[in-house]
Amino acid sequence: MNFLEEKILADGIVKEGNILKVDNFLNHLIDMDIMDQIAQEFKRRFNDKEVTKILTIEASGIAIACTTARYFGNVPVLFAKKSHSVNVDDDKYTAQAYSFTHKQMNQVFVSKRYLSAGDKVLIIDDFMAQGSAMLALTSLVEQAGAEVVGIGIAIEKGVQEGGELIRAKGFQLESIAIVDDMQASPRTIKFRDQNN
Amino acid sequence: MNFLEEKILADGIVKEGNILKVDNFLNHLIDMDIMDQIAQEFKRRFNDKEVTKILTIEASGIAIACTTARYFGNVPVLFAKKSHSVNVDDDKYTAQAYSFTHKQMNQVFVSKRYLSAGDKVLIIDDFMAQGSAMLALTSLVEQAGAEVVGIGIAIEKGVQEGGELIRAKGFQLESIAIVDDMQASPRTIKFRDQNN
Repeated sequence: MNFLEEKILADGIVKEGNILKVDNFLNHLIDMDIMDQIAQEFKRRFNDKEVTKILTIEASGIAIACTTARYFGNVPVLFAKKSHSVNVDDDKYTAQAYSFTHKQMNQVFVSKRYLSAGDKVLIIDDFMAQGSAMLALTSLVEQAGAEVVGIGIAIEKGVQEGGELIRAKGFQLESIAIVDDMQASPRTIKFRDQNN
Repeated sequence: MNFLEEKILADGIVKEGNILKVDNFLNHLIDMDIMDQIAQEFKRRFNDKEVTKILTIEASGIAIACTTARYFGNVPVLFAKKSHSVNVDDDKYTAQAYSFTHKQMNQVFVSKRYLSAGDKVLIIDDFMAQGSAMLALTSLVEQAGAEVVGIGIAIEKGVQEGGELIRAKGFQLESIAIVDDMQASPRTIKFRDQNN
């Protein structure tokens, strides 16, 4: 079992409705030591890749993306936004993503000026279930004519279809922990054996 | 002139309506070298403080908060959220904040379990104008019976009242760059002399 699987077993909370709550170390209160270990593990798994930019999506992905950037020579981090604001350029790449957490469709976007055809993009996020947000991010990269060199996820919910969808498209998807089964009562969490 | 003032002069865009756009290095595309310098400067200015937790608000504050945490012994980062979601506990501290960027009132909140009476909290954010979000964060800390040891802001818009309000309340507010005057055309940006 790796460090993240151990942390999930120790501190993750399973709730009815297929919800894994990890807001005590990953996406509300952030354990920076765990972040650092996640970042180093992404570096290990994508060590052979040339990366010019890390792309994530607000909000909690920003923590992992910024920590990961340190291990890839402090490359810039770009985060896709979910809502319009007066501070964002009209010239955007946009895609649709369904949020499992908020139960709504979001338009996600990045300003065109920050993704270019020459970019080699590592996509990073904390959580993946249906994979809708990750597919939206790959679409933004493709719209820019840039290249997705890999997708790094801290926790993948293997019972949902996101992982399968994204791997079927040929992307190198690396999830540090894949939860294949879980149950609220009695509390059980089963991880996929990844032989890493 | 310090590194951040130089960066703003070089890359910041002033738009009509008192808008300073820094999304090319601070709050959309994130320049990790600048982040690192900001974090080190916060460490220098709050070096005498005991800090048990860093508090910020989603989304762009997360980048600076996580980078800053490294210089304070990897203390946990807590980010206040702006919307309800199925993954957040009902047991919250809440406060109201007006968003200048989005022109709307937000309810901001943190789960009660992640702020405790013993916490010594350094509040960090990328931008401050009216100070509404910062006042909301100090309210969350006070509701928990915890202590605000300082407030670190990358860019303060000194023409708006936030800085004055917060300093009048006795908080140690440290802004790395304070924009006292700006104009879109001809483009001028004037910084407050802080003698730092």
